[in-house]
Formats: sequence, structure tokens, C-alpha cells
Amino acid sequence: MPITIAALRETAAGERRVAITPETAKKYAARGLRVLLEHGAGDSASFPDASYSGVEWGDAAGVAAAADILLCVLPPSAAAINTMHSDAMLVGQLRPYGAAARLAALAQRQVTAFALERLPRSTRAQAMDTLSSQAAVSGYRAVLLAAEAAPRFFPMLTTAAGTIRPSRVLVIGAGVAGLQALATARRLGAQVEGFDVRPETREQVQSLGAKFLELGVSASGSGGYARELSAEERARQQQALSEHLRNIDALITTAAVPGRAAPRIVTAAMVAGMKPGAVIVDLAAESGGNCELTRPGERVEHGGVSILGPLNMAAGHPLHASEMIARNFAHFVELLVNKDGVLAPDFSDELLAQSCVVQGATVKFVE
Amino acid sequence: MPITIAALRETAAGERRVAITPETAKKYAARGLRVLLEHGAGDSASFPDASYSGVEWGDAAGVAAAADILLCVLPPSAAAINTMHSDAMLVGQLRPYGAAARLAALAQRQVTAFALERLPRSTRAQAMDTLSSQAAVSGYRAVLLAAEAAPRFFPMLTTAAGTIRPSRVLVIGAGVAGLQALATARRLGAQVEGFDVRPETREQVQSLGAKFLELGVSASGSGGYARELSAEERARQQQALSEHLRNIDALITTAAVPGRAAPRIVTAAMVAGMKPGAVIVDLAAESGGNCELTRPGERVEHGGVSILGPLNMAAGHPLHASEMIARNFAHFVELLVNKDGVLAPDFSDELLAQSCVVQGATVKFVE
Repeated sequence: MPITIAALRETAAGERRVAITPETAKKYAARGLRVLLEHGAGDSASFPDASYSGVEWGDAAGVAAAADILLCVLPPSAAAINTMHSDAMLVGQLRPYGAAARLAALAQRQVTAFALERLPRSTRAQAMDTLSSQAAVSGYRAVLLAAEAAPRFFPMLTTAAGTIRPSRVLVIGAGVAGLQALATARRLGAQVEGFDVRPETREQVQSLGAKFLELGVSASGSGGYARELSAEERARQQQALSEHLRNIDALITTAAVPGRAAPRIVTAAMVAGMKPGAVIVDLAAESGGNCELTRPGERVEHGGVSILGPLNMAAGHPLHASEMIARNFAHFVELLVNKDGVLAPDFSDELLAQSCVVQGATVKFVE
Repeated sequence: MPITIAALRETAAGERRVAITPETAKKYAARGLRVLLEHGAGDSASFPDASYSGVEWGDAAGVAAAADILLCVLPPSAAAINTMHSDAMLVGQLRPYGAAARLAALAQRQVTAFALERLPRSTRAQAMDTLSSQAAVSGYRAVLLAAEAAPRFFPMLTTAAGTIRPSRVLVIGAGVAGLQALATARRLGAQVEGFDVRPETREQVQSLGAKFLELGVSASGSGGYARELSAEERARQQQALSEHLRNIDALITTAAVPGRAAPRIVTAAMVAGMKPGAVIVDLAAESGGNCELTRPGERVEHGGVSILGPLNMAAGHPLHASEMIARNFAHFVELLVNKDGVLAPDFSDELLAQSCVVQGATVKFVE
């Protein structure tokens, strides 16, 4: 009897991705797994049911009840969790911070749950790293939104009516999202600069043809994230940034630390000093925003500057975002299922140990 | 007594451009003209009043009444026209087709009016060619809208979770808008193809790194526009296009003939054959659309394909669009004003003769 790997239609507001794509469905089936999907699961990612092969279909309750491994882009509804059978496994972006009730519900059902956000940032984990794959989509989309909202052109334009100068784009935070934003803005023809408090990102920024902005403060941290700055360091950084922002046409901020409020980098006073028509896209809107004026999910106008605080950006390009996250999941599933297609997780593997937030009846995640 | 050159705050719905920018205001002033603007005229183009120098300000009625030359991006309101003094001149994109009432109103006021859309497409007229300068903005923006609406990435992406293939983008119509769309889509990393019924556009398309799509039909016309196709030619073209569209991720259509309904190129049946998640941006929406399913100003979903029919696209990047159109106007004004800053139009100049739609009390434009 093969195990059942399943995915539901995602239910979070605005979510359009799907955890199993036609590509990974085929891989699971070839591996001897039974693949079970909720009708229409891929619709909003432009994967209609007919685009899948070797898959069985059901309604939400039936799929959740039958799943031995349930894959999800974002946490499933309480109803779905309460339908899962004991000893089932839940794998996905489970947003464990501030989600004690959900983790308790999983433990009560004795569902073992893996939050892939918790994977260590090791070489082996890269192929499963949903934060990275989805951040690339967010960074790309941030530039599209900035370019669309800008009253200016990003590229230089030479016409019979004279020359239009390229826009100056600054990206704060040189993680995956920031680097993809830099690459995209440069592709579009803007003059790009990157800034990060971790000086070791300088080379990556420069390798994309962007200038590395010097603000005279270093804050290398551990685990690939920046440490928090001291008050004095922050003040110095802010003064220099404030001056610099006066000449920036589009600013994209991407500074986030998992499980914490986003660092406030751009103050209202800095925004007030920016050019009329400047645009800010704050990718940290979900965790409160890098800009003091950001309102999550909204567009704010402040003295001629537009501040966009878009949410769940990866869902904006759901077909390719799903392809990537579904591959991340498929790599992770290899840790759970042995050659014979039987569930055989090895919890001494640090990838499983670190990402496991609920094991059987026990909540293992501590904030 | 210097002549007064003036601009109002534009009043068409969604219009954000302005006919006089800080740059051209300075030029007019240096030329000895009195520059008069309505308060806030440049606000929505991110040119606040404070960004202008050497300018006088007034309310709409006062500005319209005092103007010797009134510049406009789009036709002014009837109220503004009825405030202008006789022997004043109106210069701008006057949309003369189907606008008999407006032209009659101008003639009644004895306002001499120049519709820059009517300029010949000659080398000398290039610097005044608002259709071209604004089409460049539209073509650029069309790609941003397509990329933003697409569930796919435009560029190739190589990640730890495998490779995302670049989108295939087809641009129909290789005028200024189409060429700018091709250039922008290619910049973003898409695989691009261009099509035009005028085979002489092949080299321009290829010079942008795009493939020229062969559909086996040629329709070179005069004046830089395509001739209309015969029924049989159209059928052959449509069959070939229909096949080709099956593999296209984003389609941008730009085929328009001034004063006529846009040619219907993409049928509902063709759209039905396209991939789920494909996106169409129809730049001809304003004149009825190149796609049968286009609804001007709306986004339509049809069998998984999104069809966008955006209007007045150049207003979407009003700062740079204004810079360009204001320069077009400044070049044209040189034909109206002599060295001493006195109105001295020479109607034997074909640029004036062809663009003049109302001269004194006479409507000269015939549809």
C-alpha cells in the first residue's frame, strides 16, 4: 500500500500558489507514491486539473483525511488540520512564530509538522530552501511594482525629443530578495545601488553590476542574518542614508529577521526629504515594514512620495513560484520517504530535527 | 509686451501629464516669453509649483483667458476653450477625429488650433512628434503591466531548486510602442519576437535582439502605417498566428491606424488556444482593441488567459512622459514665435499647414 502525498487548494487570502505542480506530481508518482489533490488546487497558479497526470482528485476534507504527507504553501485551515489522521505529516511554510494555537492543534491530532522556514541555511538544505526560492520572486516583483508606480522611466531613453536619464534605484538588504531586485532593476536599465549592514555582501552586490553603498556601519551577524545595530550606529547610518535618499528615484527595502518585527530603517523625515515622485516598495511590510510610513497591503502617498507595502509577493507570480516551492518540497520529501516509498524519517538528520515543529503529540518549536 | 504661453492643469480622467515642465518653462522664459501656469498644473506629474522658476500662476479661467499660446497634453475643457481670447493659439494633442463640436467651438472663438497628431512623419517633424514620444512610454509600460500580471517570470532564473525558463513574449506591431515593448521585454530577460505586416520593420525588430515572426503576409502602406489587408490575406495571417500563439506567454498588441478602429487581429478562438496563464496587453484598447475580447479600461479573464485593455498609458509615467511631450511642444512653438518673441506663424510651412485644424474662424480639419 503506497503512502499518499497530498495538497489542498490554498485558502489564505490572496494565495495563488500550489504545493504540488504537474512536474512534481509526476515525480512523486514515478517514485511509487499515490498523489492526491483537491479539485482545482492548481487553478489559480495556472495549473488546471487537466494539466496534471497520474493524480487522484478529491474534495478538501477527503484529501486532508487521506494524506500521509500533506504539503502546503501556507498553513492549512484549522478545519483541514482537524481532519488529518494521526501520524500524518504536514510539510510547508508553517509560519510557526506566534502560532501556538495552530501548533497545539497539530500536536493534538498527533500530526508531525515540518516548517521549512526553520531549515538550517546549509548547503544541503539549499534545494529545500523555500525562503530563498520565494524571496527571488518577491524581489523580482518588487521592481515591477516600483517601475509601474514610478512617474519616471527606469531605463535611459534617447529620442528625437532628447534624452531621458535613467532612474536611480537603491535596494536595502542584500539577501535573496534584495539581490534579485538589484538584478531586475539593472536589467530594466536603472542605475542601481545596493546596501546591506553585512559588508560581506559587497561582492555579491557588485557582481550584479550594482554599486555598494557605504554608510559607514557594519553589522555582520550569524546564520546569514544581520545583528541588531546599536543606537549610535543606527543614528549614524540613518544620517548618511537620509542624505543619500534625496537623490533616489526608487527605493526597495528588504530587511527582515524571521520571527521579529522588521527593523525600522526609513523614517518619515527621510521620506519627506525624498524627491517628488520617488517610490518606495517595502518588502518587509508583512513584519511591520522597514519604513515608518508603510501600511501593510496599502499604498500611501506622503509629500509626493509613494510608499507601497505589498503582502505575500511570491503569490503574485504563482506559476513559477509554485514550480520552485514544489521542487523545494520534493527535495524535502526525499528525507521523509525511503527507497521503498515508506515513511522513514531520520530525526537525527539536522534538517529534519531543526525544521520539525511538532513531533507526534509534542510541540517542539520554542520561540 | 511679451506674448503669454500657458498651460492648464489637465482635466481628462486619469490624465497626469503637464504640457509645460520646469525645463521648458525656463526655455520659454529665456526666450522672452511670459510663462503662465494654473496652480498645481504639474502636481500629478511630480512637478510641484515650487519646482518651476520664472513662472506666473493663476486659476484655470485666468490662465485660459490670458494665453496667447495655450499648450495642452489633451484637449482642454469646453469651459477653458470658451474663455480663450480670439487670435489665441491652442497647441497639443487635440484628438480631432470625431471631435467636430470641439473644433467648431474653437472656430467660433477664432482660436487657431494645431493638433500635433497631424504632423507629417518627416525628419523635421520628429522632434515635435508627440505620437512617437508618448508611444515609447506606452510600449514600456505595456511590458511592465504584462510582467506584473503574468503568473510566470519573464527572465530565466537559475536557483538551487532548478531552472525557470524565460517567458516567450510576442509583440504585434513594430511602431514606436511595439519596438519599445520589444526592447523592454528583452531587457527583462524574456525571449522576444516581433511581428508587423510591414516587412521593412524586420531589421528594426532584429536590431533589438528579437526574432521577426514570419506569418507569410506583407502589407506595406504609406505614411509609416500599414495598409489594410484583404480578407484572404487576413485569414492566412490569422491561421498562422493562431498556431503560433499557443506557445506564447505574453502578447502585446500595438496595431493602430489614426482615426480608424483598430484592426482585429486576435480572435476569441485564438485566445482559447493560448496557454493557461498567458497574458495579453492590448495597447489598441483606446480605438477598440486588436483583440476581440478586449474591454477598454478593464481586465478580462478568458479560459485562464488575462486580457488587459489599459487606456492612456503614457499618463502612467507622467514625469518623463511630460518631459518628452513638453519638449515636443517647445520645438513646435519655435515655428509660431519669431526671434523677437512675437507670434509669426508661416502657414506655408507644411508642418503648420498640416497640423492646423482650426485657423481663425475656419475649421480646416476634414476627417
